[in-house]
Amino acid sequence: MPSITVLGLGAMGSAIAARLRVHGHAVTVWNRSPDKTEPHAEAGANAAATIEEAVAASDTVLVVLLDHASVRERLDPVAAELKGKTVVNLVTTTPNQARDTAAWAAEHDIPYVDGAIMAVPSMIGEPHARLLYSGDEHAYNAVLPVLEQLGTAEFTGEDPGVASLKDMALLSAMDLMVLGYVQAIAMMRTAGTPAVDTAAEVEAWLAAMLPHGRELAAIVDGGTYDTGGQSVDFDRFGIASLITASREQGVRADLLEPHQKLLEELAATGHGDSDWIRVIERLTIR
Amino acid sequence: MPSITVLGLGAMGSAIAARLRVHGHAVTVWNRSPDKTEPHAEAGANAAATIEEAVAASDTVLVVLLDHASVRERLDPVAAELKGKTVVNLVTTTPNQARDTAAWAAEHDIPYVDGAIMAVPSMIGEPHARLLYSGDEHAYNAVLPVLEQLGTAEFTGEDPGVASLKDMALLSAMDLMVLGYVQAIAMMRTAGTPAVDTAAEVEAWLAAMLPHGRELAAIVDGGTYDTGGQSVDFDRFGIASLITASREQGVRADLLEPHQKLLEELAATGHGDSDWIRVIERLTIR
Ligand SMILES: NC(=O)c1ccc[n+]([C@@H]2O[C@H](COP(=O)([O-])OP(=O)(O)OC[C@H]3O[C@@H](n4cnc5c(N)ncnc54)[C@H](OP(=O)(O)O)[C@@H]3O)[C@@H](O)[C@H]2O)c1
Ligand SMILES: NC(=O)c1ccc[n+]([C@@H]2O[C@H](COP(=O)([O-])OP(=O)(O)OC[C@H]3O[C@@H](n4cnc5c(N)ncnc54)[C@H](OP(=O)(O)O)[C@@H]3O)[C@@H](O)[C@H]2O)c1
Repeated sequence: MPSITVLGLGAMGSAIAARLRVHGHAVTVWNRSPDKTEPHAEAGANAAATIEEAVAASDTVLVVLLDHASVRERLDPVAAELKGKTVVNLVTTTPNQARDTAAWAAEHDIPYVDGAIMAVPSMIGEPHARLLYSGDEHAYNAVLPVLEQLGTAEFTGEDPGVASLKDMALLSAMDLMVLGYVQAIAMMRTAGTPAVDTAAEVEAWLAAMLPHGRELAAIVDGGTYDTGGQSVDFDRFGIASLITASREQGVRADLLEPHQKLLEELAATGHGDSDWIRVIERLTIR
Repeated sequence: MPSITVLGLGAMGSAIAARLRVHGHAVTVWNRSPDKTEPHAEAGANAAATIEEAVAASDTVLVVLLDHASVRERLDPVAAELKGKTVVNLVTTTPNQARDTAAWAAEHDIPYVDGAIMAVPSMIGEPHARLLYSGDEHAYNAVLPVLEQLGTAEFTGEDPGVASLKDMALLSAMDLMVLGYVQAIAMMRTAGTPAVDTAAEVEAWLAAMLPHGRELAAIVDGGTYDTGGQSVDFDRFGIASLITASREQGVRADLLEPHQKLLEELAATGHGDSDWIRVIERLTIR
């Protein structure tokens, strides 16, 4: 089995290094604060004293530092040593940051795969840990047997930004769903309802409503907002009621206001009769 | 079986009147535009020419007009005739509008139940049609056999506003979840991903994440935001990444901004180390 280098032994890097080692790989680890390499060395990993040494030890380098800035700071000085090795960058970045590192790697003849981890460290190695990858597909396929040990691997495209994009799109959806719980809990607390009771209700309700997203998506793909379904004007009335209800109970409606604003923009530009899902066109600015 | 009067034969009132008639009730109907009573009369309902006549025909009056204004406009002139009869108001209103009508009813000795219909007309009569009620519990229990024919009935409390409040809290949660789909679809469209593909991914992802709401609710009920979990400062970093990623792709981040604003408020008031779910306290203004 090929030797693997892991740069960064925070919560995530440690879980990844441990998983690969348990699976029988020769693992070389490096961390800015050297004390974090100790438990790995005791368990049989090769603890590199410098990043140069770590990079020299393997043909595959997994990067699990904190953020984009730390990646560029640490990889820049070892660009020459990385030439021809495969770098898999598992650090959470924006799409453009991933593209930036990919361009840097291309300049230095470093095959580059950008990753996004949709899991917490304790899930690493389980099939429900989902990891998205994009960038150099040839390099991805070559290291896939290693990546598959971390969780379910999915290649999302040759644009190196697209794994990050998909990660952030799904996290955005989750964020808004969670804010739905927050809004409902805040409203029902004003009537003395415990948050856990509201959450149980919301969970059952949202579970039943989840498939609605597919219907809306079909309209978006269909390319016409002349559906005869719930219109912008109808939705404006509905959202205004939610906002009023919230405020009447002493709960700010900040989370609901952007939806209203987007609908007002549509109404002001003559789209009051369109299907409300036309709001997606207002979001898309280019 | 008792005679029932239905005021309003729009999409919802018609479905309700038809359901009760099919179930064997003597049904009296009234509608502002009289032509809508015709199909009901042909099917065996008693079509009242005036609202006074409609109200006189039954001891239970279901109100299915458009909005709060139409309810007060139409019921005020027949307040004396309604004395001692049970009025069940199924019109969608805000909590304070429901309380307003309840106060008016109390003034005129009219037992009053406020309802909120969490269903579309085609679901009326099915168990998955859910109807919330609040107000006079004694009157509610007396008419419950009738209400149970419309769908699953739930009494939410003696505060007449609470059925509307719960309706609006659940609709708010749904609205934000749906906006999560919209945001994710908008972001992934910029990479050429069809909306239906993104919706399918979001659906699976959100289904897996739904139970997270209960964990957050337990923190809210626990009364301390000193959990050691995801902090305000950590969440600020995460949300900032989502906003940047969205804008980089040419998608407005309006839907995500209020979350960031609430976190900034918490950080500015010294709560950067608190669990991020403390945002709920910023939403609650009294
Ligand atoms: N933890 C999760 O649940 C999770 C989930 C998905 C994705 N991720 C992503 O995985 C990456 C690592 O997360 P983590 O949870 O392991 O973070 P962490 O526990 O905070 O560890 C951060 C790591 O980055 C190193 N580091 C920070 N700044 C550095 C610099 N300028 N130069 C060199 N090393 C530096 C730290 O080294 P020191 O030990 O010297 O400080 C440490 O090894 C992040 O991009 C994170 O977004 C994490
Ligand atoms: N449809 C749904 O999916 C749904 C779901 C949940 C709750 N609701 C609620 O149910 C209620 C009725 O909805 P709907 O779908 O039946 O609406 P609709 O089809 O638009 O019908 C509105 C009804 O209200 C009457 N009306 C309007 N203004 C009036 C006034 N000033 N005086 C007397 N009558 C007046 C109309 O009479 P004319 O025929 O003379 O215009 C018609 O009977 C609304 O509060 C709605 O929010 C509906």
